[in-house]
Amino acid sequence: MVELYGDERLDYLLADEEMRIIQSPSVFSFSLDAVLLSHFAYVPIRKGNLVDLCSGNGVIPLFLSKRTKGKIIGVEIQERLHSMAQRSIAYNQLDGQIKMIHGDLKNAPQELGYGKYDVVTCNPPYFTTSNKEEINENEHFAIARHEIHCSLEDVIRASSQLVKQGGKVALVHRPGRLLDIVTLMRQYRLEPKRLQFVYPKDGKEANTLLIEGTKDGSPDLKILPPLVVYQDNDEYTDELKRILYGTK
Amino acid sequence: MVELYGDERLDYLLADEEMRIIQSPSVFSFSLDAVLLSHFAYVPIRKGNLVDLCSGNGVIPLFLSKRTKGKIIGVEIQERLHSMAQRSIAYNQLDGQIKMIHGDLKNAPQELGYGKYDVVTCNPPYFTTSNKEEINENEHFAIARHEIHCSLEDVIRASSQLVKQGGKVALVHRPGRLLDIVTLMRQYRLEPKRLQFVYPKDGKEANTLLIEGTKDGSPDLKILPPLVVYQDNDEYTDELKRILYGTK
Repeated sequence: MVELYGDERLDYLLADEEMRIIQSPSVFSFSLDAVLLSHFAYVPIRKGNLVDLCSGNGVIPLFLSKRTKGKIIGVEIQERLHSMAQRSIAYNQLDGQIKMIHGDLKNAPQELGYGKYDVVTCNPPYFTTSNKEEINENEHFAIARHEIHCSLEDVIRASSQLVKQGGKVALVHRPGRLLDIVTLMRQYRLEPKRLQFVYPKDGKEANTLLIEGTKDGSPDLKILPPLVVYQDNDEYTDELKRILYGTK
Repeated sequence: MVELYGDERLDYLLADEEMRIIQSPSVFSFSLDAVLLSHFAYVPIRKGNLVDLCSGNGVIPLFLSKRTKGKIIGVEIQERLHSMAQRSIAYNQLDGQIKMIHGDLKNAPQELGYGKYDVVTCNPPYFTTSNKEEINENEHFAIARHEIHCSLEDVIRASSQLVKQGGKVALVHRPGRLLDIVTLMRQYRLEPKRLQFVYPKDGKEANTLLIEGTKDGSPDLKILPPLVVYQDNDEYTDELKRILYGTK
C-alpha cells in the first residue's frame, strides 16, 4: 500500500519486476541520465556509505540499492520530491538501506559529517540561471533543472567535503560544462579519473557526460568507450538495452 | 629528382598519387596522429596564414596544402628533419606555399610575428621527461616523443602568441593530458571549442585526442562523434579509410 497525491503514479523502475517508484508528470519523473549515472558510478558491493545529492524522487538511491549492500543517504531540497522518495523507499521496503534527508546540499557535510563517505553521486541542475526567461514556470522543474538553489560549485564543494580520501564522486552533466567541471573538481581535490561521453546517435555530438573523480587521487584520466543511445531506426542500441533492461 | 641520405625513402603520402614525402625508419616517419590532426584542423580554404609547430618531416604542412590555398610555415628544431621537410616540399614543387623554418618554437612568435596567423597546428612530443630511463636512446625519436626541447606549456604559449584574435589552434595529444591541455589553453586565452576522442577499437578506452581552441573565443565546447580506428578484424574502419585514402 502506498499513498499517492495529485497526478502521482506508482511506476515500475524500468524492467524491474519488483521495484516501483512514485513519479508525477507535473512534478518529477526520472530521466535516462539518472539511469546512466547509477550504472556508471563505482559502488562498493558489500558495505560502505554512499550519498546521493539532488536526489529528486530517489531514483538513484533506488537503482544503487540493486548494486550495493552499503547504506545510502539521499539529499533533496524540494519537500514534495523528498516525500515521493520516502514513500517509494517505504513501498520497496528499503528503509533499512536508504535514508532520505530533506535539506540543502550545502549543509550536508555539516549535518552528515566530513570525509566519511565512500561515494557521492549527483545528477545536478544542468542550466545556469543567467537567462531568467528560459527558466521553466513550473517551480518543481525549474529547481530541478536550473542552478536556483545550488551552483555547480556548491555541488562539487559539498561532494568533496563528504567523501573520504580515496572516495569517489560521480556526476552526470552536459558536455558544454566539461571545462568548468574539471576545473572545479581539481580545485576541490577531486581528481578526474573516468570520463565517458554519451552520444544520442552515431555521427552526432555528445549531449551528456559522465565523470568520476577520486578525492586526492593521482592524475590519470581514462576516456571510456563512447555510449550511443539510439540506433538509426530510433530504437535503443544493444548497449543501452543492457543498461536499461539488463537484456541484450 | 631528390637527394636521399642514409636510409631515407621517398614514400607516397598515403594514397596520393602525386605527392611524396621523405621518411627514414631510423629518424622519422609520420604517424596516424599527424594524418588525423591534418584532417581535424579547421583551415581557411582560399587564403590565410598557417603555422605548424613540431613539424617533423613536414607531413602536416604537406597534408594541409591539399586543403588550403593559404601560406603554411612549418617550424622544426631538428636539422635533419628540417632538411627532409625542405627536400619533400621542393620535390612536390610546393616552395611557393610551404616554408620550413629551422628553429625553436619558443622563439617562433618573435621571429614570425605576434597575432598574425589564422591557424596553428601541432603534433607535439607526448611524453614528459620525468622518467629518464624511458626516453628512447635514438636522439631523433627522443626529441620527437619527449618534452626535451619544449614542454606542453611552451607549445600552447607559442601557439597562442602566434594566432590572431579568433584564430584557431589545433593539437593532437594523449587523453591522459586532457586536463593539463584545457587548463593551459584557458590560461593562454585559447578557449577549447572542439574535442574529439580517437578509440583504437569499439569498446576500448580512447588513446588519442584532437582539440581545437579559439583565441579569446567564448566558452562553448562541442564533443565531436567518436573516431574508431580499427574494426574487430583489425582492418581500418570505413571512416578511417575515408580519412586516410579518401575512399569508403
